[in-house]
Amino acid sequence: MLNSLLSTQNIFNSSKELLSWIQRRNQEVSVDIQRIPFNELEDWYVDDEGGIRHETGKFFSIQGIHVETDFGTKHSWDQPIINQPEVGYLGILTKEIQGTLYFLMQAKIEPGNVNCVQISPTLQATKSNYSRVHKGKRPLYLDYFLNALPHQILLDQLQSEQGARFLRKRNRNIIIKVDDEIEVLEDFRWMTLGQIKELMQTSNKVNMDTRTVISGIEYSDYLTPLFNKEKMSPFGRDMLFSSMHENGLFSMNNHLSWLSNLKAKYDLFVTNKPVNDLEEWELSADELSRHDGQFFRVIGVNVSISNREVKSWCQPLVEPMQEGLCAFIIKKIDGVYHFLVQAKLECGNFDVMELAPTVQCLTGNVLKSKVRPPYVDFVLNAKKESTIYDALQSEEGGRFYHEQNRNMLIEVGDDFSTEVPFNYTWMTLKQLYSFLKFNNFLNIQSRSILAAIKYV
Amino acid sequence: MLNSLLSTQNIFNSSKELLSWIQRRNQEVSVDIQRIPFNELEDWYVDDEGGIRHETGKFFSIQGIHVETDFGTKHSWDQPIINQPEVGYLGILTKEIQGTLYFLMQAKIEPGNVNCVQISPTLQATKSNYSRVHKGKRPLYLDYFLNALPHQILLDQLQSEQGARFLRKRNRNIIIKVDDEIEVLEDFRWMTLGQIKELMQTSNKVNMDTRTVISGIEYSDYLTPLFNKEKMSPFGRDMLFSSMHENGLFSMNNHLSWLSNLKAKYDLFVTNKPVNDLEEWELSADELSRHDGQFFRVIGVNVSISNREVKSWCQPLVEPMQEGLCAFIIKKIDGVYHFLVQAKLECGNFDVMELAPTVQCLTGNVLKSKVRPPYVDFVLNAKKESTIYDALQSEEGGRFYHEQNRNMLIEVGDDFSTEVPFNYTWMTLKQLYSFLKFNNFLNIQSRSILAAIKYV
Repeated sequence: MLNSLLSTQNIFNSSKELLSWIQRRNQEVSVDIQRIPFNELEDWYVDDEGGIRHETGKFFSIQGIHVETDFGTKHSWDQPIINQPEVGYLGILTKEIQGTLYFLMQAKIEPGNVNCVQISPTLQATKSNYSRVHKGKRPLYLDYFLNALPHQILLDQLQSEQGARFLRKRNRNIIIKVDDEIEVLEDFRWMTLGQIKELMQTSNKVNMDTRTVISGIEYSDYLTPLFNKEKMSPFGRDMLFSSMHENGLFSMNNHLSWLSNLKAKYDLFVTNKPVNDLEEWELSADELSRHDGQFFRVIGVNVSISNREVKSWCQPLVEPMQEGLCAFIIKKIDGVYHFLVQAKLECGNFDVMELAPTVQCLTGNVLKSKVRPPYVDFVLNAKKESTIYDALQSEEGGRFYHEQNRNMLIEVGDDFSTEVPFNYTWMTLKQLYSFLKFNNFLNIQSRSILAAIKYV
Repeated sequence: MLNSLLSTQNIFNSSKELLSWIQRRNQEVSVDIQRIPFNELEDWYVDDEGGIRHETGKFFSIQGIHVETDFGTKHSWDQPIINQPEVGYLGILTKEIQGTLYFLMQAKIEPGNVNCVQISPTLQATKSNYSRVHKGKRPLYLDYFLNALPHQILLDQLQSEQGARFLRKRNRNIIIKVDDEIEVLEDFRWMTLGQIKELMQTSNKVNMDTRTVISGIEYSDYLTPLFNKEKMSPFGRDMLFSSMHENGLFSMNNHLSWLSNLKAKYDLFVTNKPVNDLEEWELSADELSRHDGQFFRVIGVNVSISNREVKSWCQPLVEPMQEGLCAFIIKKIDGVYHFLVQAKLECGNFDVMELAPTVQCLTGNVLKSKVRPPYVDFVLNAKKESTIYDALQSEEGGRFYHEQNRNMLIEVGDDFSTEVPFNYTWMTLKQLYSFLKFNNFLNIQSRSILAAIKYV
């Protein structure tokens, strides 16, 4: 694993070839997305209450909810949300070749992606997909995952998706290691982890599903006394060091108590409400949107593409009305990198609050408003030399239309105060990983930034 | 903490005095519980759908749900459930006195307890209690918990209650250590942890709330090189040894993957359904019960007692129709005790499945049925010499009327197979604690048995 992390050498495909492969696939594939009214969405219907559902009752639906909470400044609101109660597979198949672990990645088209073709896990399938509700082809490589033995499983976690858009949605993030000869099918390539992370340094090459799966890999698990840290960059060594520190400025018991207190103190009540009755929202023939045009809208599209299981289909997509910003501030405290973590309440969260990046907000409104979330201005004015990572990344292209967030990692110096607001704290990378592996603690935005950390 | 665990000496109250104190309180206190029709429950009403609610909208309510799952043999059913969305406090105040940690425990009356007076935490308060919805007295010692500083908090977890009876209910389990002089009020006594565990060896002396709080204490956290293990019983030493083993027959990664797989594979859909429409249930003037008289019923009672915050009140209570059995099988594997753990789906679970004891079932029906859950017969026929623990313990006496479960800990020998059904596995005590502290993994029945383990 560590060889793979540190290697951008690949006996099959150089990084340059991979990049041009993605670009070529983007040019070759014809993707046609047409907006159509909801009542022309084949296999979908608008129910009596204004909810948008698939005729099989499977896949996902757009429903209305009413939210009440005593956290934050807004205590009550209505909104539509994506309800997808099935747990899907996000699986990466790996194989050790000449001492390095290779990841079998796919150039996958998702209708909503910026850059339609992005690097995706080997397997990306909802239960409806693999139980073949849509009568398409059986997902490729599925059986390797269904038949994986315990010793072949390197990672296996249930992780959440966007809590502001999905109602308690989770995916099974899984990495397996096989010894079999693997046929590399069209649209698939072997990559090292180092290469995936390299591709992630630029915008919109690696999809959200890949990012969430690799975010869970705890590199310190793979450390052996023989490992030569000299191959790492100084920053990489410092990150590895942080990923070995169980205790930092605070102990895990401090963090658990901090989070128990916040979850106990603040209520989140989410109740179903007919879409037709949602305050400040309106369902027209071809969109479900807010009167003030803010946040997001739901649209209907007809998608035609060439190398997916189903070549043409209709579906609703969620289109954001502004871009987002997700940034972690990190700071060395006693020589150990600490992440400034925020406990954030979002209406679709499985457990009230999840651990979010220091800054997670929409940019359009926020920049005009006088009351801004903590650290937004600091992050947006960060100097280039303290910006370790800065790229735009797409959210799940199967549900969101051109939704991208700016992902940033900003290092601050000794002069940056460790005093933080009550729902923020400082965690070592090890502490973040401890939460991560017990499911539903780190939100997708946090995980996306962790995935981007390079060690070379 | 370890001194307290191993000490049944107490400079304030001997164990004998404590026992007679509980017995005396049980005799002194007059408790009168009258069954009354629902429409005579003061401050409560039956809503249009048959739900039973408090007029303030606070405390708890009895609602109907419809459950669908593809796990187990019964795939669909209706039932009433207790909905109590607030997170309550279960707090124990401790203080180090002459090198030993003392726990400030209360002789508390709960209307539903077998033995009305049982040992309870220092503080046991719902949000409605401490925000004074019922206009009673402010809970005693509350401020110590509200004002606790991080270094005073020894344990702070959100833990679930009975998943078959409560809809996603959780409590904040908290232990704090203070240095102040503490006034010991009437009905309170200082006890060592060893004494609490000693009281737990007999039936119905220590209430459920105490058991859940102390179950979370990870003794190996308090080990120092100077600690003299000779003070422990051989069994206690073996348990401590198990609580230090991160890896056993399986690794934590194996367990996390096993649980991810089960949670992803099985669906649990719980939807609201009017009580009036619940299949197989009937709401009459004075009870909500099943046609076949099984499982449980909801009744209305008028309670009059003498030393609670409110002296007389009405409330609904849930009365079980048969007793339950909760038993852990433990086995030494390579010299380390392993617990045979079951992943159990219950309709009110926060996250589909929780880790339950080897056996957790009702006894009445089960013993008559031909298809019995795994290990039931084995446990009921266990020999006396392999039965480490066997006592009846009451569930939450504020919600349940005379509900008690037989709690057992059974040791098996080498001849007991480690091959187990797909939803069972073997965990060391350390692994159980690792899950326990990340909330909502171990169910209340598991935690109750862990709490009973004696180390002297």
